[in-house]
Amino acid sequence: MRTPPFLAPFGIGLDLEKGAMVRPKRRLVRRASDLRGYYADAAALEEQVRRGNPVHYEVEEIPVPETRGHLMYCISRILPGRVGDEFLMTKGHYHADAGTAEVYLGLRGEGLVLMKARGKFRAERIVRGRMVYVPPFWAHRTVNTGRGPLSFFCVYPAGAGHNYGDIASEGFPRRVVLRRGKPAVVRSS
Amino acid sequence: MRTPPFLAPFGIGLDLEKGAMVRPKRRLVRRASDLRGYYADAAALEEQVRRGNPVHYEVEEIPVPETRGHLMYCISRILPGRVGDEFLMTKGHYHADAGTAEVYLGLRGEGLVLMKARGKFRAERIVRGRMVYVPPFWAHRTVNTGRGPLSFFCVYPAGAGHNYGDIASEGFPRRVVLRRGKPAVVRSS
Repeated sequence: MRTPPFLAPFGIGLDLEKGAMVRPKRRLVRRASDLRGYYADAAALEEQVRRGNPVHYEVEEIPVPETRGHLMYCISRILPGRVGDEFLMTKGHYHADAGTAEVYLGLRGEGLVLMKARGKFRAERIVRGRMVYVPPFWAHRTVNTGRGPLSFFCVYPAGAGHNYGDIASEGFPRRVVLRRGKPAVVRSS
Repeated sequence: MRTPPFLAPFGIGLDLEKGAMVRPKRRLVRRASDLRGYYADAAALEEQVRRGNPVHYEVEEIPVPETRGHLMYCISRILPGRVGDEFLMTKGHYHADAGTAEVYLGLRGEGLVLMKARGKFRAERIVRGRMVYVPPFWAHRTVNTGRGPLSFFCVYPAGAGHNYGDIASEGFPRRVVLRRGKPAVVRSS
């Protein structure tokens, strides 16, 4: 087991009202075109790509070494909106080191954390003041079901890594769509 | 390496304004009498113990398995006040698995996180909206320098464990005291 790099302590600012990192050093931006293959309505997604290719979500980080012992933290922000009738969402992933947890703390907006592991599926509501525990082994995807941005603070072991490939091919067993004016969790067809 | 126990996802409530867990399952309460040996003014502490033995700080948890892969999270709340001229503080500890980090997110009040490792000392300010990163190997103690409670959300690897013994015997190289009406970080004598 590699020894974690020795680092000096530091502090950073988080705007707990806006749900934003004050001066992020790294910003991962996912646009409509990055989400090809994830939404049921591929034609609606292509229409978005043609019409300005809007940002779907962003992840703000001030990175630490990606090794065991360190903890990575971020602010994720998912914009409001839909692709067809499906609410905007993250790609979702397992951790590459699958047996590692993640903690989400809702700061703004409302949504659902979809999780799956070993044939089971769970959806947990995330809103400001609600913490969601993603246990080891659960793939996780977050969906914005509200009218404004959904922002949450996240913490996970820095050595966990991301396995996007399995979700890109398997997907999730449920989708979150607008039905009669309200979000509904329905079976993926 | 033991495989982490498989757990179902869950959500819990955190009051981000009060800095409190909504329905904690475990509450660690440290009173004046639990802090014997930690403050410079032992007589002032004994006087507090005799006069009702007040709570100095509390830690609220909804525990997960204390094994690698899981993440423990808590709300810590340090009451305002002093022992002699020294501001109320936690005992402080290294992690038993020393090479593991901790993330603090300030929710209410103001204070300092004192940290030491390998002969170095650092103090980082913690206030609402400020996150402090305690890197692997750094012992950490939090001090309330404000007029109200200091509350913060914390996340650390659930298998990290606590080593209180080394701090109980070594102490920290600095203390935080009231000097001319303001908090000051001074050498421990």
